[in-house]
Amino acid sequence: MPETRDPASAYRAAGVDLDAADRFKEKLKRIVGATPSDGVVGGVGGFGGCFALAGVRESDPVLVASTDGVGTKVLVARAAGRHDTLGRDLVNHCVDDLLAQGARPLFFLDYIASGRLDEAVALALVEGFAAGCRENGIPLLGGETAEMPDVYEADGYDLAGFIVGVAPRARLDRLGATVGPGDVVLGLPSSGLHTNGYTLARKVILAGGRSITDSVPWGAGTWADALLAVHRSYLAAVLPLLDDPALHGCAHVTGGGFEGNLARPLTPGVGVRLRRDAWVPPPLFEFLEREGNIAPDEMVRVFNMGIGFCLYVDRREAPRIAHACADAGAPAVEIGEAVTGEGVRWD
Amino acid sequence: MPETRDPASAYRAAGVDLDAADRFKEKLKRIVGATPSDGVVGGVGGFGGCFALAGVRESDPVLVASTDGVGTKVLVARAAGRHDTLGRDLVNHCVDDLLAQGARPLFFLDYIASGRLDEAVALALVEGFAAGCRENGIPLLGGETAEMPDVYEADGYDLAGFIVGVAPRARLDRLGATVGPGDVVLGLPSSGLHTNGYTLARKVILAGGRSITDSVPWGAGTWADALLAVHRSYLAAVLPLLDDPALHGCAHVTGGGFEGNLARPLTPGVGVRLRRDAWVPPPLFEFLEREGNIAPDEMVRVFNMGIGFCLYVDRREAPRIAHACADAGAPAVEIGEAVTGEGVRWD
Repeated sequence: MPETRDPASAYRAAGVDLDAADRFKEKLKRIVGATPSDGVVGGVGGFGGCFALAGVRESDPVLVASTDGVGTKVLVARAAGRHDTLGRDLVNHCVDDLLAQGARPLFFLDYIASGRLDEAVALALVEGFAAGCRENGIPLLGGETAEMPDVYEADGYDLAGFIVGVAPRARLDRLGATVGPGDVVLGLPSSGLHTNGYTLARKVILAGGRSITDSVPWGAGTWADALLAVHRSYLAAVLPLLDDPALHGCAHVTGGGFEGNLARPLTPGVGVRLRRDAWVPPPLFEFLEREGNIAPDEMVRVFNMGIGFCLYVDRREAPRIAHACADAGAPAVEIGEAVTGEGVRWD
Repeated sequence: MPETRDPASAYRAAGVDLDAADRFKEKLKRIVGATPSDGVVGGVGGFGGCFALAGVRESDPVLVASTDGVGTKVLVARAAGRHDTLGRDLVNHCVDDLLAQGARPLFFLDYIASGRLDEAVALALVEGFAAGCRENGIPLLGGETAEMPDVYEADGYDLAGFIVGVAPRARLDRLGATVGPGDVVLGLPSSGLHTNGYTLARKVILAGGRSITDSVPWGAGTWADALLAVHRSYLAAVLPLLDDPALHGCAHVTGGGFEGNLARPLTPGVGVRLRRDAWVPPPLFEFLEREGNIAPDEMVRVFNMGIGFCLYVDRREAPRIAHACADAGAPAVEIGEAVTGEGVRWD
């Protein structure tokens, strides 16, 4: 069709630049192409990413899928001008959700929406997703990058991640169902807030006229460093344990904190009792509790308090499991036990 | 832990209401529970949704996954106060992406992020996702609802969808690769703008001082009705054809319009020639072109022009395929042909 009228791009004038989007897609392909390709069929650019099941050897395989965002951690990244860690947060968060269910990850997809496609920011975001995928050994199978003026501020954006993993059916049936009174709860250390509680944390920290570039009061680094610490992946520590008969269940301490997550894998009639004095929360959490005048029981509903993942294990085998976790870089602490009852109680 | 200090919820004061979120989750479970459950293992509330592969009978199965949003169609829904159709848009969009790749859908997950959790709006959004899943016969396997003040306006939100389907490997290898010069392009009718071009369309329509509640100039209904028409699912028309040897390839006319999508399934050396006079675009598209003073070649890069899905078919079998589509409710029109060359050209 001949271009007979306005030679300028009406769509660009309306705030959407398709040519820039095309150039961006080419760069994107290179980044995505540098993630693991086991199982991937075909290249980037189809209407969907393709992943062959031929390499999936699990017996009676069940796909496990999860989606998540990083919450208002995006605002911290924007304020700090660091955009290459959020993707790692999100991949690790999704991987941990799968592990808690008993699955190993197969592939990941990302959704990025922004007010205006700032190529450098968007590429940094995708680099983060790709880095997260590499760290967990999975392909970045696809994604969507949407330019949505009027929904997001010009330099505003949001991210969502989607993950698919696989588990043998028998393992899914066993994990959680086998937790019984007397089982020990082992807590694995978090790297910081992970991806939850940022709305409250930002409010507390910024309330005192603090800047994100200020140093934290307890030592090295800035508030930006502390708040952007990457959500930890527990793949190396937990994956080798998933078929260990001593592992009875898992919980990922994410939105809703301990109360919202520790009871999720448990069957009716089984509750959990945690000891608040079993570990000392890192200084960031103590700061938030004190400066924000936040009640202790709210702290544990909102924040992970330094424990990002929990394992329910056979009491006799707890030392062995704890040792295995420590060897994998995640020193485990006994923080409580499963009990007859319902829900989460604190001693 | 005893509640020793501030009995009010600091998190709620910061703009996030966890109790409301818990009540919302209960209602959510009921909506999600009313979507098809074939393949679903376990209930709502785990760290990930579980889908058994036992029912997948495809030979050498390949998972196909895709993610998308509805763009600034969210702003039209907000302005119109109708929130129960966007979910259907997104499920259908994702289903059509899978079909274009040659896959049938297995399950869907949704991501909803808003400035403030308005329960009625959020439930309407999820009802839309559930309705879309029912229409396409798949479970709503999971989702995330995030409250993100400061990222979104109080009544602002964004949606992302994630779909996983399956195809036999041989079909994936065949579709696209077998398109050759002389193949006919059949176009299937869209229901409206589907989910693309909304930033430009809104600008054009609202520029003249029009309100979304005004009637459209060409007859029945308001601008809101025209703009919120649900993205069509081509499942009923296209799924039965995916193993028809006369079907050589598919394209979903989505972001990037004809130029961005028609060539996607083609191998190097094969292009496509389309005839602009082969069909009359619905009045909405003619209105946007005229009122927006948009060049014809930009129109076909941004909008679907009334054709939402294209099939590349063997010329001799085109009448039979067209007939089958019409019988399935999607009357097909011959809009062009595959040619020796590259990319999309218009006659």
